[in-house]
Amino acid sequence: MPKLRQDPATRLWSIIATERRKRPDDFVRHDEAAESLPSYDENCPFCPGNESKTPEPVFSVSDPEAGAAGKWSVRVVPNKFPALVRPDGEGDTTRRVRKCMYLEMDGTGEHEVVIETPDHSKTLATLSEDEVTMVVRTYRDRFLALDKSPWNQMIIIFRNQGEGAGTSLVHPHSQIIGTPVVPEEIRRRLDASQRYYDDLGTCVYCDILDYEIKEKTRVVCSNSGFVALCPFASAVPFEVWILPRRHASSFGVLSDGEIPLLGKMLRDVLQRMYRLLGNPDYNYVVRSAPHHSAGEPHFHWYVEILPRLTTRAGFEIGSGININVVVPEDAAEQLRKAG
Amino acid sequence: MPKLRQDPATRLWSIIATERRKRPDDFVRHDEAAESLPSYDENCPFCPGNESKTPEPVFSVSDPEAGAAGKWSVRVVPNKFPALVRPDGEGDTTRRVRKCMYLEMDGTGEHEVVIETPDHSKTLATLSEDEVTMVVRTYRDRFLALDKSPWNQMIIIFRNQGEGAGTSLVHPHSQIIGTPVVPEEIRRRLDASQRYYDDLGTCVYCDILDYEIKEKTRVVCSNSGFVALCPFASAVPFEVWILPRRHASSFGVLSDGEIPLLGKMLRDVLQRMYRLLGNPDYNYVVRSAPHHSAGEPHFHWYVEILPRLTTRAGFEIGSGININVVVPEDAAEQLRKAG
Repeated sequence: MPKLRQDPATRLWSIIATERRKRPDDFVRHDEAAESLPSYDENCPFCPGNESKTPEPVFSVSDPEAGAAGKWSVRVVPNKFPALVRPDGEGDTTRRVRKCMYLEMDGTGEHEVVIETPDHSKTLATLSEDEVTMVVRTYRDRFLALDKSPWNQMIIIFRNQGEGAGTSLVHPHSQIIGTPVVPEEIRRRLDASQRYYDDLGTCVYCDILDYEIKEKTRVVCSNSGFVALCPFASAVPFEVWILPRRHASSFGVLSDGEIPLLGKMLRDVLQRMYRLLGNPDYNYVVRSAPHHSAGEPHFHWYVEILPRLTTRAGFEIGSGININVVVPEDAAEQLRKAG
Repeated sequence: MPKLRQDPATRLWSIIATERRKRPDDFVRHDEAAESLPSYDENCPFCPGNESKTPEPVFSVSDPEAGAAGKWSVRVVPNKFPALVRPDGEGDTTRRVRKCMYLEMDGTGEHEVVIETPDHSKTLATLSEDEVTMVVRTYRDRFLALDKSPWNQMIIIFRNQGEGAGTSLVHPHSQIIGTPVVPEEIRRRLDASQRYYDDLGTCVYCDILDYEIKEKTRVVCSNSGFVALCPFASAVPFEVWILPRRHASSFGVLSDGEIPLLGKMLRDVLQRMYRLLGNPDYNYVVRSAPHHSAGEPHFHWYVEILPRLTTRAGFEIGSGININVVVPEDAAEQLRKAG
């Protein structure tokens, strides 16, 4: 009998379809595309030497080993084809227009690309701990920088790995977008955790963390700062959340001491997926409270990693209920063994 | 400058990214897979002669031209690998269990497959008007049948066309699932239209229909019963809604007289997409009110057709804001010309 499980934080339901259960092997991709990429591609706009093909960087970490001028290990540039555009001057945050029955506004915001390494052939799972830590530090610093712009209501940090996850460029990179609205889907998540807090006086994510650490079956790995777990109502097979042990609603408060702990854990989880599922396509997003909710006691930032092993189809679109063919406890067990 | 547009019914935002604008040609698939399929495949469980490979049909339309016993033109069978399972007896609609901090329940419901034609090589766009009308009649009749089961809170009718839309079997078919819960995503949609009704005293979908008919730019085609349009805040390129002119929140009230009008329009819209976009992958869903909201004045059922031309990636997942690279007015114009 399949089970319906509800995520207490978002009130979203997932169907855990045990009758359709699959083993990790069924998902493993057997092409070795990532391994066979060259470490340099002269046509890649993100490769060293092609810096002129991207807009001027807004941030850059120079390579401590190279020493020579112009060598970098992480580089952040404005997206050449931005989804949202930095406004002139201070921006006008009230530029929403009623068009008869509709609401429309200028697509102001920010859209940056984090080039994670000069090496074209790598991915986060195959970078060193220090390199992934540098990427996490870059996320935190750019988050704080973009969070200062009055036109950004929310900062979304995300990564699309592989064509099935929507990547157009293979060179390792993540993206950061600042949005001028808090959309309904996010408001709904915030409302759900707010209601939980109003009822019980605790953060639902803190409670999940306490419960899962005791329960153990869904925990993948942990360190002194973070816990990685397969959520009870996982929307997709091998979904993993990396939750900070310390309560904070905004990613921006990530401390210098926590950065290497998150870098280490992010790499560890992605390496487990890489081994178990054969370098799968995935998306991850840093779920953080909007700017004006940064101090709220009810929300708790985390990293949500979603392997793209199955296709969201008509039922999921029409019902808002996900069908997940792998039991989260089984996914966690497999990921624990893949360490 | 990209525009952010809000759907007044769901309060969901879409980014209309004009700088990333694409022409229909950029989406056209140039494989001719559908044309080259055989009209019969001996290994296909949905082909005539293989009826024993599916569970016993719950509904069947015999072929008026064949006359011979056993010949059918539409056939509905329980899904052999159901996402939700029909309970024994009357079912127990209160079988929700608190597992410490989580909610879990048995996955009871219903999952049927509508085999739309005996011809393996067809798709709705290449069936006759009468054949598509028969499919629509089957939807209505099965909707009414499933809506009687006390364990079904919502009936979702949907179709996945092509691998990119999540199909595993190519033989033309749709699916119907009855769910034991009204999930948060649907409740949010209902709440949004309820609030609109509470404020203005009218159905937001009726207002959209009135406005769009006058405005014309987003209308694809219309007949005496239905209007097809590209919604103002389309989530994906070439998204089309088919709205009944007559207000009704539940698909179950579709009248005998309206059935051929919907069949004709559904085929017309899918044919336009087939021509313009080269037999694209798509999902469609019939968005209908849950069982207990069937009489509500604020919701309005419709068919939502979503071509799968782009990939939902990290930003969409993290923000709940869609990025759509085709302006809905342009999509509507192209679809009008493809008639």
